[in-house]
Amino acid sequence: SEVKKIAVIAGDGIGPEVVGEALKVLKKTEELFGYQFETENGLFGGIAIDEKGTPLPQETLDLCKGADAVLLGAVGGPKWDNNSKELRPETGLLGIRKELGLFSNIRPATVFDCLKEASTLKPEVLEGTDLIVVRELTGGIYFGEKFRREGANGEEAVDTCVYNVQEVERIVRQAFDIAMTRGKRLASVDKANVLETSRLWREVVNRIAPEYPEVELEHVLVDNCAMQLLRRPSSFDVIVTENMFGDILSDEAAMLTGSIGMLSSASLGEGSFGLYEPVHGSAPDIAGQGISNPIATILSVALMFRLTFGYHEAAQVIEDAVKNVLDAGHRTGDIAVDKSKAIGTIEMGDLIVAAM
Amino acid sequence: SEVKKIAVIAGDGIGPEVVGEALKVLKKTEELFGYQFETENGLFGGIAIDEKGTPLPQETLDLCKGADAVLLGAVGGPKWDNNSKELRPETGLLGIRKELGLFSNIRPATVFDCLKEASTLKPEVLEGTDLIVVRELTGGIYFGEKFRREGANGEEAVDTCVYNVQEVERIVRQAFDIAMTRGKRLASVDKANVLETSRLWREVVNRIAPEYPEVELEHVLVDNCAMQLLRRPSSFDVIVTENMFGDILSDEAAMLTGSIGMLSSASLGEGSFGLYEPVHGSAPDIAGQGISNPIATILSVALMFRLTFGYHEAAQVIEDAVKNVLDAGHRTGDIAVDKSKAIGTIEMGDLIVAAM
Ligand SMILES: CC(C)[C@H](C(=O)O)[C@@H](O)C(=O)O
Ligand SMILES: CC(C)[C@H](C(=O)O)[C@@H](O)C(=O)O
Repeated sequence: SEVKKIAVIAGDGIGPEVVGEALKVLKKTEELFGYQFETENGLFGGIAIDEKGTPLPQETLDLCKGADAVLLGAVGGPKWDNNSKELRPETGLLGIRKELGLFSNIRPATVFDCLKEASTLKPEVLEGTDLIVVRELTGGIYFGEKFRREGANGEEAVDTCVYNVQEVERIVRQAFDIAMTRGKRLASVDKANVLETSRLWREVVNRIAPEYPEVELEHVLVDNCAMQLLRRPSSFDVIVTENMFGDILSDEAAMLTGSIGMLSSASLGEGSFGLYEPVHGSAPDIAGQGISNPIATILSVALMFRLTFGYHEAAQVIEDAVKNVLDAGHRTGDIAVDKSKAIGTIEMGDLIVAAM
Repeated sequence: SEVKKIAVIAGDGIGPEVVGEALKVLKKTEELFGYQFETENGLFGGIAIDEKGTPLPQETLDLCKGADAVLLGAVGGPKWDNNSKELRPETGLLGIRKELGLFSNIRPATVFDCLKEASTLKPEVLEGTDLIVVRELTGGIYFGEKFRREGANGEEAVDTCVYNVQEVERIVRQAFDIAMTRGKRLASVDKANVLETSRLWREVVNRIAPEYPEVELEHVLVDNCAMQLLRRPSSFDVIVTENMFGDILSDEAAMLTGSIGMLSSASLGEGSFGLYEPVHGSAPDIAGQGISNPIATILSVALMFRLTFGYHEAAQVIEDAVKNVLDAGHRTGDIAVDKSKAIGTIEMGDLIVAAM
């Protein structure tokens, strides 16, 4: 099979550790399925600030643009938290999304049966929960003009939230497409009773909906959605929403599964290119101790196989291996009930590779 | 004692029913404590659209401005959902907040022991949860310029989020003051890693914090807060945040208590004037059936007594009466485990009055 290029961005904190295990899994699929991957490392985030003076060096961007997919660990940490805007890891994140045209962030919130007890929700409420949040990623208030000015009452700050029809159309179409491959239910989340961008959003959703007569559509106000996720998580299939609302709701959805150390995400643009990363952060407090959980990053490889390469069989092998290792009772510290029996990052990676 | 003027806005859906019971409680305190209340009804929301052609008639505004406090039921319903902006109940809500200068929305999220099982959270997680969300109510993206325009890629919509220093200062001071009367912990929620308004917000919080050396302050990013509310609700005391974030987080916080039919809220400005209302909506689906739960509105009267009139003893009597009636096992349909034993709105109101 043809050689696939993967840009590997380990990043900060536990990023390098968890990416290391994911790369072992990747290698194993070469052996099992005859795939060929060419991986190249890029600097990004805090470490890029330290070594190159910018969170997103041009060479990293070029590396990503020349690749078929990007595997990202995690970025950020207290070391860079008080930097000026241009020298913050988050600025790199926003930059890479925009530069690579990654307008869509896909966040599956799946419940791992064997981790159900880790959720703060009652098991009977969580039962059957399996949803995906599709978040618009390159528009809205994140990317609109921001500035300070002198107002009538002293200094003021301004953020601007802008959406055009085309930006809404492409993300909404993608969400409908995803819903068609799943439960055929789509919840579009907005604040159309207050915001003009939300009214535009809802108009576009309603205009596109007839193209997908099989998909059952509901409009949910964002405040109500924050409640309904808690009240009836299993009733959601696909949720589509704008950037800021998606940031908040996807984190809420991830947390309620109880499996946040296990969740992966994909950021997609036009075509098959994608950036894949765990939902969890760089966890600077436990970095370097070899105790972090590599599963979300390993599952990000499976997601990459499905969404970018169409390697569904191999993806299934990875997902099954993870499940088997968990079912056999192996746990890293973050998900262990009995912390004294917790295994390390490398041991978890080895077990999963062995189970493939 | 002097006569207190209360503007009563029953509104739509179950609004009139639940307000009716709250007024019985109010009357009872006249009898028990010798208070004198002068109540006058105003049209607002959907019913005002139908009868006066606007959600917020000038005479209602004048009535409120001439009163010491406002008691509001609920507004809105599907009947008006597709109206143009000027003819929507929500527009009236935003208008009344702005016109009355109600810059602060106080939403206690309390867990009623006897209703703990109604929450979807595990009881041991909920244990000890007792928090207040202080939401900025007259600024931010709700009130900034909104418009459509032709952009390079076709039609686009714009919302503007603006905060000035003074707007942030007054709400943050109030939140610190409230924290001083409670657990002395304040979580300030923003998205300072992305938004300019959030950076201004955080600067102001940090500038004011030294005035309250006893209050333990934490800054929490909004996405993280949506997670932490689920993970460790009992660790929060007072949460202060801007308008849009407050809308989402206060609803999430309310829902996780399992007691949403029981929660009241206050909207305050400078001075002692306030508008009091239940957190729940107008529930058009059950309106007119006499089965709605009046407790949140009754507790809104208690909140009015505490925050506007300083009638703490009477407030306690109301709150205790509610507790006693619940402890005796009486439930309206929304909170009844055995729905066949549910009592009606009026019966619940009568029981609470009798228990006072
Ligand atoms: C770090 C931050 C800019 C980022 C976001 O808000 O998009 C993060 O929270 C995420 O969800 O990926
Ligand atoms: C109806 C709507 C405009 C309102 C808001 O978002 O402020 C409501 O959700 C609330 O929280 O009071």
